[in-house]
Amino acid sequence: MKNGVMGVKVYGDLQSGNCYKIKLMCALLGIQHDWVHMDILAGDTRNEAFGEKNPNQKIPVIELADGRLLWESNAIINFLAQGSSLLPEAPFDLAKVQQWQFFEQYSHEPYIAVARFINKYLGLPEDRKAEFETKQAGGRKALSVMENQLAQTQYLVGDCLTTADISLYAYTHVANEGGFSLDAYPCVTAWLERIRSQPQFVPLG
Amino acid sequence: MKNGVMGVKVYGDLQSGNCYKIKLMCALLGIQHDWVHMDILAGDTRNEAFGEKNPNQKIPVIELADGRLLWESNAIINFLAQGSSLLPEAPFDLAKVQQWQFFEQYSHEPYIAVARFINKYLGLPEDRKAEFETKQAGGRKALSVMENQLAQTQYLVGDCLTTADISLYAYTHVANEGGFSLDAYPCVTAWLERIRSQPQFVPLG
Repeated sequence: MKNGVMGVKVYGDLQSGNCYKIKLMCALLGIQHDWVHMDILAGDTRNEAFGEKNPNQKIPVIELADGRLLWESNAIINFLAQGSSLLPEAPFDLAKVQQWQFFEQYSHEPYIAVARFINKYLGLPEDRKAEFETKQAGGRKALSVMENQLAQTQYLVGDCLTTADISLYAYTHVANEGGFSLDAYPCVTAWLERIRSQPQFVPLG
Repeated sequence: MKNGVMGVKVYGDLQSGNCYKIKLMCALLGIQHDWVHMDILAGDTRNEAFGEKNPNQKIPVIELADGRLLWESNAIINFLAQGSSLLPEAPFDLAKVQQWQFFEQYSHEPYIAVARFINKYLGLPEDRKAEFETKQAGGRKALSVMENQLAQTQYLVGDCLTTADISLYAYTHVANEGGFSLDAYPCVTAWLERIRSQPQFVPLG
């Protein structure tokens, strides 16, 4: 799983699933990196210095040894995985990896990660309960789309681990913290275990 | 800009910006394709036959001559652009293309495209006005992030057109239909014109 990226600086929060994708990818590939902790709630992403790194004021961001910057978690892990077995070479398989990653950002994260944030970090306050409830159907739909695929293949893109699995592992494995039971998704549950058993796996946090 | 994909079937709605990305890509690259019209409001994406093509029940979807299926607009256009000048070969540039595409799906489309949908297709009904208003700040933020980049480079990833530009052109050029004036974004406005002047360009609709 080796690749050629060296000396990466990662700006992120280890509690964030999007940032955890980078941490897990670096662990699986043995990529040496410096982690710069960013506290979102304390406003670390909103100051001017960070705005020059990412004008969209979101983490994670990586900075290469030569100063080049890259944001968006899924773009980052695909970059880190270049030349490794985690990124398929065949154009169609590579497209399927991206398909699942765009699915993750549009149809999965906005439901499951946001419900988890409202529940776990905000403590499900009264004035966010309605929003929390509106996230449930979309989250279950996303899990059922994954279940459908994982009933056919061991991983999301065929029978090998790819960056698509890392992208979707990040928030799926803590979906229960957003109010989603995984009992109805046995193939998803087995897939989570398959990822957890990878050599050099590291947990969230 | 030639590539090697032949005999593609596209399931889509020509009024949808996400589907328009595919149409524009096929035009720029001269990719012959069959367009299968899908009427979302009439429920075409919700029937069982389409659910077998995309269990997430969204368009666009492409079907290759051998029956393989691919969903998610940005994954599709990157696949179609393989081997053409629209997809950079250098790993970092390719990662920057994806960065902008993930930005599009998470930080741009959910504001600008959704505001446009509420305004243009639903006629800004009273019970969606509050939601429409909540989309305005996020949409302006996305436009300012683009303006920041386009003040430095001709296109989003350096000085050549890439699929990232196609992804963000789709809804940016109709942002006014979602209540966003582009007057405050001169570099975005000039970039729209640069895309419109590409050989073989086709408009939305």
